[in-house]
Amino acid sequence: MTTPRQRLEITYLLRTGPGEGARARAREIALEQTVELPEGAFSEALEEAVVGRIESVEELGGDRARATISYAPGLAAGDLPQLLNLLFGNVSMKAGVRLEAVAWPAAVLDALPGPRFGIAGLRRLCGVKGRPLLATALKPLGLTAKALAALARDFALAGIDVVKDDHSLADQPPAPFAERVGRCFEAVERANRESGGGTLYLPNLTGPVERLDERLEAIRRAGGRGALVSPLVLGLDAVRRLAGTSGLALLGHPALAGAFFGAEHGIAPAVLLGELFRMAGCDGVIYPNAGGRFVLPLAECEAINARLRGPLGGLAPAFPVPGGGIDARRVPEWIERFGSDTIFLLGSSLYAGGDPRRAAERLVVAAR
Amino acid sequence: MTTPRQRLEITYLLRTGPGEGARARAREIALEQTVELPEGAFSEALEEAVVGRIESVEELGGDRARATISYAPGLAAGDLPQLLNLLFGNVSMKAGVRLEAVAWPAAVLDALPGPRFGIAGLRRLCGVKGRPLLATALKPLGLTAKALAALARDFALAGIDVVKDDHSLADQPPAPFAERVGRCFEAVERANRESGGGTLYLPNLTGPVERLDERLEAIRRAGGRGALVSPLVLGLDAVRRLAGTSGLALLGHPALAGAFFGAEHGIAPAVLLGELFRMAGCDGVIYPNAGGRFVLPLAECEAINARLRGPLGGLAPAFPVPGGGIDARRVPEWIERFGSDTIFLLGSSLYAGGDPRRAAERLVVAAR
Repeated sequence: MTTPRQRLEITYLLRTGPGEGARARAREIALEQTVELPEGAFSEALEEAVVGRIESVEELGGDRARATISYAPGLAAGDLPQLLNLLFGNVSMKAGVRLEAVAWPAAVLDALPGPRFGIAGLRRLCGVKGRPLLATALKPLGLTAKALAALARDFALAGIDVVKDDHSLADQPPAPFAERVGRCFEAVERANRESGGGTLYLPNLTGPVERLDERLEAIRRAGGRGALVSPLVLGLDAVRRLAGTSGLALLGHPALAGAFFGAEHGIAPAVLLGELFRMAGCDGVIYPNAGGRFVLPLAECEAINARLRGPLGGLAPAFPVPGGGIDARRVPEWIERFGSDTIFLLGSSLYAGGDPRRAAERLVVAAR
Repeated sequence: MTTPRQRLEITYLLRTGPGEGARARAREIALEQTVELPEGAFSEALEEAVVGRIESVEELGGDRARATISYAPGLAAGDLPQLLNLLFGNVSMKAGVRLEAVAWPAAVLDALPGPRFGIAGLRRLCGVKGRPLLATALKPLGLTAKALAALARDFALAGIDVVKDDHSLADQPPAPFAERVGRCFEAVERANRESGGGTLYLPNLTGPVERLDERLEAIRRAGGRGALVSPLVLGLDAVRRLAGTSGLALLGHPALAGAFFGAEHGIAPAVLLGELFRMAGCDGVIYPNAGGRFVLPLAECEAINARLRGPLGGLAPAFPVPGGGIDARRVPEWIERFGSDTIFLLGSSLYAGGDPRRAAERLVVAAR
């Protein structure tokens, strides 16, 4: 028998049904996520070894409760897809179950790569110490590879630390992957030589999955040191594989993640983006910042920051990358609030005035 | 310029903000999913070629509206990850956006494999004509491979058409993948020879992604003709690749799908499970049936059935596989309602009484 400390402890916020106790609801989840059998249809030995164990149940009033259920780490250790199943696979289809927090046992964390570069490594790649980094996006979809490369050059000369593709840039005709990557790397390299800067260009590394290795090779051949990936679009486990084998720094994009962000149902952003993306190997994780075009409240953003940077077994800390409509004029405020181990991602705000390069130059001055 | 019929048309149910018109909200989505830029920051040419076009907006009263936005298929054709981005990537992070329906242009459908076997092919594999199929699951997690194989034999002798692994069976020590697959195939083969039946065993084919091909090979070596896959856990594009190259029939499991099933936010089950899973190549798709342990209302189940079986470009129809707590005693009723081109998946209900084989035999009699 393992002690609770060695088990995977998951805290769920639950909505209980009419006349249903919180403990019964917790038990239902403990069965659903493991044996998928009704009471009485499995042995005592399986009850002990496999079924989730209810560690605590707290009634919150009304029809709300919080329950912590622990699982033997061997049910999922070393297997990220099965870990996703265990965390939220079947309960995703029950009403009113929100995964709020996880205490991760070493057996689970040790089997995952975590960030290869992390905050310190990304700082080394960009040559930036002691201040926050600035990032922007090459856009829009529909521009030619040449036009995107010209923008990349402008941003690099302006002093933006990280220039990434928009996540919708895949392999569409106006800017096919290989041409775009070649041109943008060359443009950024040349700008870096001119300016003495260290801007990092991150192309969008995406599927079809059978072409990932070929695209990875193209990035490496062009001298690339990193890439943008969308873990929920590409598969979290595909990203985990890339993190372990590609040698690239990976910036995680949250596309599709909002499906999980229900107030009463889903997975807390700090767990999904702050922990799972980091465990899969993202060196930085983009999230939609409060006050922008999206819906995360400030407290959730701060929780993501804390989970990306805080202790997580032996895994390196990862950069929080707030984005999604940050107003360039408010960046000093956000630096004050989020601290220097942050990458601020500004896209729209630099493009809005029609002169992205000048806007980027102004941003760099304001931020330093 | 393409006519609307050639474009990808997406219908969203929207919640509008205070003082925000439905058309403004639709325009916001049309920009977010394509150029990710504010008004005025892109050219007329990109407006025409890339930005989503609002085809219709219908005010539904209160703060609800329905909008249809069309996109040039070239933005995503041939690229399932980018298709997911276009459908719901960034808007997942906005409040109150539910993707209700899609009109798929040929350019998108033709580039995807769809079911290799489909309803007709799965019927051939099982040797069953003109009646619904019955399926069950090997469980629970924690049993040895030998014990699971004994169950597989019992179910095959009882006349169950499809015996699948529980989706939580990955490669855990009590029943490691290779041993489980070998033993279960052998048990089912032997039972088929004894009984003259054609039971199909579907092992759970899951990650780590770099081991998929090796596991696929093990299934093939054992004489397997199909597998269970969880597209949202493994990555929808990983399943698309398997469908195109494995030669196996694929049964799709809905793990994690419930995250998308919000009443006001997410993707309609009929689109996610009925269309996207089918387009990615699932020959059958499991969904949580109404009246079981999960939350889908009957109308959603019937919509999934319709989208799996109905016309979808040149793609073969796929089997609906209602499961998730169907009561064995009610199967005749469900057959009446859902029709014979259905696979009824009963797990718990057969195990509940402690004698799964007898329960399976009774089910087979009741269903035929």
